Amino acid sequence: MSKGKKLINDPNDVVTEFIEGIVETYPHLQYLDGFPEVKVVLRADIPSGAYDKVAVISGGGSGHEPAHAGYVGDGMLTAAICGDVFASPSVNAVLNGIRAVTGPQGCLLIVKNYTGDRLNFGLAAEEAKSEGYKVEVVIVGDDCAIQQPRALAGRRGLAGTIFVHKVAGAAAAAGLSLAEVTAEARRVANSIGTMGVALSICTVPGQLTSDRLGSGKMELGLGIHGEPGAAVADVQPVDDVVSHILKRILSTEHIPIKRGSRVGLMVNGLGATPVMELMIAAGKAVAQLQLDYGLAVERVYTGCFMTSLDMAGMSISLVKVDDDILERLDTATKAPAWPVGVNGPRPSTTLPLPLPREPSGHVAKSRPEKLDEQAQVLEAAIQAGAEAIVALKDALNDWDSQVGDGDCGTTLSKGAIAILEDMKQCYPLNDPVETINEVGASIGRAMGGTSGVLYRIFFKAAYVQLKENSGPVISVEGWLAAFEAAVAAVSTYGGASAGYRTMLDALLPASAALKEKFSERQTFADSLLSAAEAAKIGAESTKNMQAQILVQWRQQLG
Amino acid sequence: MSKGKKLINDPNDVVTEFIEGIVETYPHLQYLDGFPEVKVVLRADIPSGAYDKVAVISGGGSGHEPAHAGYVGDGMLTAAICGDVFASPSVNAVLNGIRAVTGPQGCLLIVKNYTGDRLNFGLAAEEAKSEGYKVEVVIVGDDCAIQQPRALAGRRGLAGTIFVHKVAGAAAAAGLSLAEVTAEARRVANSIGTMGVALSICTVPGQLTSDRLGSGKMELGLGIHGEPGAAVADVQPVDDVVSHILKRILSTEHIPIKRGSRVGLMVNGLGATPVMELMIAAGKAVAQLQLDYGLAVERVYTGCFMTSLDMAGMSISLVKVDDDILERLDTATKAPAWPVGVNGPRPSTTLPLPLPREPSGHVAKSRPEKLDEQAQVLEAAIQAGAEAIVALKDALNDWDSQVGDGDCGTTLSKGAIAILEDMKQCYPLNDPVETINEVGASIGRAMGGTSGVLYRIFFKAAYVQLKENSGPVISVEGWLAAFEAAVAAVSTYGGASAGYRTMLDALLPASAALKEKFSERQTFADSLLSAAEAAKIGAESTKNMQAQILVQWRQQLG
Repeated sequence: MSKGKKLINDPNDVVTEFIEGIVETYPHLQYLDGFPEVKVVLRADIPSGAYDKVAVISGGGSGHEPAHAGYVGDGMLTAAICGDVFASPSVNAVLNGIRAVTGPQGCLLIVKNYTGDRLNFGLAAEEAKSEGYKVEVVIVGDDCAIQQPRALAGRRGLAGTIFVHKVAGAAAAAGLSLAEVTAEARRVANSIGTMGVALSICTVPGQLTSDRLGSGKMELGLGIHGEPGAAVADVQPVDDVVSHILKRILSTEHIPIKRGSRVGLMVNGLGATPVMELMIAAGKAVAQLQLDYGLAVERVYTGCFMTSLDMAGMSISLVKVDDDILERLDTATKAPAWPVGVNGPRPSTTLPLPLPREPSGHVAKSRPEKLDEQAQVLEAAIQAGAEAIVALKDALNDWDSQVGDGDCGTTLSKGAIAILEDMKQCYPLNDPVETINEVGASIGRAMGGTSGVLYRIFFKAAYVQLKENSGPVISVEGWLAAFEAAVAAVSTYGGASAGYRTMLDALLPASAALKEKFSERQTFADSLLSAAEAAKIGAESTKNMQAQILVQWRQQLG
Repeated sequence: MSKGKKLINDPNDVVTEFIEGIVETYPHLQYLDGFPEVKVVLRADIPSGAYDKVAVISGGGSGHEPAHAGYVGDGMLTAAICGDVFASPSVNAVLNGIRAVTGPQGCLLIVKNYTGDRLNFGLAAEEAKSEGYKVEVVIVGDDCAIQQPRALAGRRGLAGTIFVHKVAGAAAAAGLSLAEVTAEARRVANSIGTMGVALSICTVPGQLTSDRLGSGKMELGLGIHGEPGAAVADVQPVDDVVSHILKRILSTEHIPIKRGSRVGLMVNGLGATPVMELMIAAGKAVAQLQLDYGLAVERVYTGCFMTSLDMAGMSISLVKVDDDILERLDTATKAPAWPVGVNGPRPSTTLPLPLPREPSGHVAKSRPEKLDEQAQVLEAAIQAGAEAIVALKDALNDWDSQVGDGDCGTTLSKGAIAILEDMKQCYPLNDPVETINEVGASIGRAMGGTSGVLYRIFFKAAYVQLKENSGPVISVEGWLAAFEAAVAAVSTYGGASAGYRTMLDALLPASAALKEKFSERQTFADSLLSAAEAAKIGAESTKNMQAQILVQWRQQLG
């Protein structure tokens, strides 16, 4: 047993402080001035006592957020009555909630099947009736964990309750009478089955964390208040967990779902389970429901709808649907916790889209039989540069071994050799623009790691610049602009600039010198010599540079 | 170190299976047929190559769900490129994503500031440009954990990136050009600060759980990949945690937020922190921002937006807003993970609504000076019943001690004594309907626990029935109907019926006998005697009844 870590203040204030936070987040929500006993979240736009539609009210113990306050909004709940953590709200709290939002059309109370909630909501309902309100109550017990011989007894209200909120809320928003809203709520409540699995036990604020559930174990058929599950088992692949849960739900007597039925699926996170895992479970559940049980899965709701504080795990709910229920589920609502983007129709099978075709320009290049004058210069330049790198291999490795892993020369040499090889085979040297692109491709083939990507970026950026601005013969200005663009891309995507003790400390001065000298009407050859000199001075300057810690929070490349 | 429990299959398949699940959940999403390398989620309604607006693309390593796939939808992202868990997607994956959704208007890549993402998205951007696409890149670094001397270096991209997605997505949906969308994205990216706190370290699928963070400790300035935070501290009340984070964000040089600024607030859960705690933090942050820093909090976004697998903790982001940015944030989107119900205007102060007034009928009752004939009978009946209960106190306790905690007689006797006392003081006996209500009130005053609520429900339901159907003199039929309604209410709200070994095994036969005998034209007195006899037989029958385990999963009442 250890103290649970929580982002709270006084454990006794968690519910009231939660309510203060939720009304700050959602401007359409308000709360009643009755703390600490009366904790009621309600629509801010309901005229007190004069609401012209059926009010739909739910609630219960807290700790299940976003239930129930997150379902308050036009088209769903009119008010949510919040008890303390895992404790039913008082009769007085429920009664105040009823009074605050109920008009001449009356109200429906949707109550999860727990003794405390039944009694407190029940007495408040009778009290409100005696005050002249029209009140109906629907009790929801969607739990399939234990096969009970008796009707509702022992079937707890779980995440499937949210379907009842939505159907009743949409029916009320459509202007239906209390009797009609109640009938729709009752019908959907009788068509829902839910079962859960827990990988951890929740910790109630201010209490110790239970170590009931051992390492590598999970509980099946859990409650949403840390009650022990119906069975303990070894953690299994989620495919098997989903399969077990679906089998149990679909073999439950009171759930009217049969082969050929249309269903809605809810995969509900219990508080500490990542969306990634919930989505994995949802994908598996859809496949099993369709293929193994012959059901038509009409809607899928994946997320955290009815949690159990910080419990890891999920529950799966199935609701039998028809066009009427689907219409209620699909109707827009302002309730912030009801999922969006889930409306149908869903395609019956989900096939991925084919990959887009590569552009047709990507055809194999080949070296021309005869090189024009520009091509001969280009080849000589590429060859000289590549051979210089190969010659420097050992020296570069030696220098690198003093600050890094000593493979800099080997890596660069691999790239240079690939360039020399490919140039003989396939560089279209009479087309200097495409040749520059092929230099990058050779590097991509031969050099891995961060530096490989950086040199590829260099040549790709130069290529883009040349392609957009140059014809078959490249002017000096064209080469200058390409070099400048290439250096800028290395800086932009590499996240470094001058003074970071990187290759840019050579490249940036070189680029500047080249531009400056050429604008001073030096020859291109002289300008290149000045640029090389500037690069050398820049490289030497890193000697005395304080190593700029480029905080590489994460090295994502191998 | 222990093995983390997860609802997954093969750890190598978590991202592809997540994608299969998310497209089942949201029919407007699709994915490219390029698994395992190309993992791209995109809008299903985009005509390949012919999209007539600027495509907005983001992505990065997985493990941050709902980011980034959950932000794909009309009005936000056009596609999300998913890498493996905490690993950048490949150049090829990004390039395929660009090709799949980019039309003549071009695309904007929104990239979080990590080396791998910069390089892979960067090279893909240059590659796409060379294929003729118009491409812009905005890099987001909203991290305030470390005060860096240099511009973007070391500032990681965190949850604030979602604001850039939204602003750029809304600008693109409005039909703006690539240059305009890019300018808006860059402007908002430069106005965001984020800092986080972790209560636990996330566990990568297939790896062991770190025990780096000891009991009672938290890390401040965490990364979203399990990187160590900037500092370790004892877990503090959330007020202090929020205060520390806000101070750090607002003292960061690059964040242009000053006293009087208008801001948006995001409280982001890291994966395993309950909504309850996030809302508490949000409420506290709003108060501090307004009162301590003199900021106008225009929007509040509370939820899980950019997680770190199953990490417990949160981050807080602030974005400087003006009317233009607010309009982009408020525009409706089909992206399922962007919060709904958060649009403004927000009231500058949130005062709770006053409690509704109690109905005016609730005035103090008093015993009349002179009792009419009906009142005399009523008083005699109530007195006889109450005194019988008092006389049975010890016997009831004795019987109860053999199956329960032996206080049944004491509890019932308290209620009976309260009735006898109150009847002398304040029962309006000439008004039998109101008198029945007062009997319930006496019980409410004196009896606690489940049984107290059940008896109050009994009398309240009888009262409601009488009030709606009876005049000043109650007919026998009136009493019968009231008794029947009262018993029915106890059954409905108590969740039991015949055979559950509860008081209903006496009440239900009594109610049936009363109705039957009176309909056979027996006198009311004789009918009552038959009812009492039936109740006795029913009570005796529970002797041999198998204790019906009314699964009381949770006893919510004291």
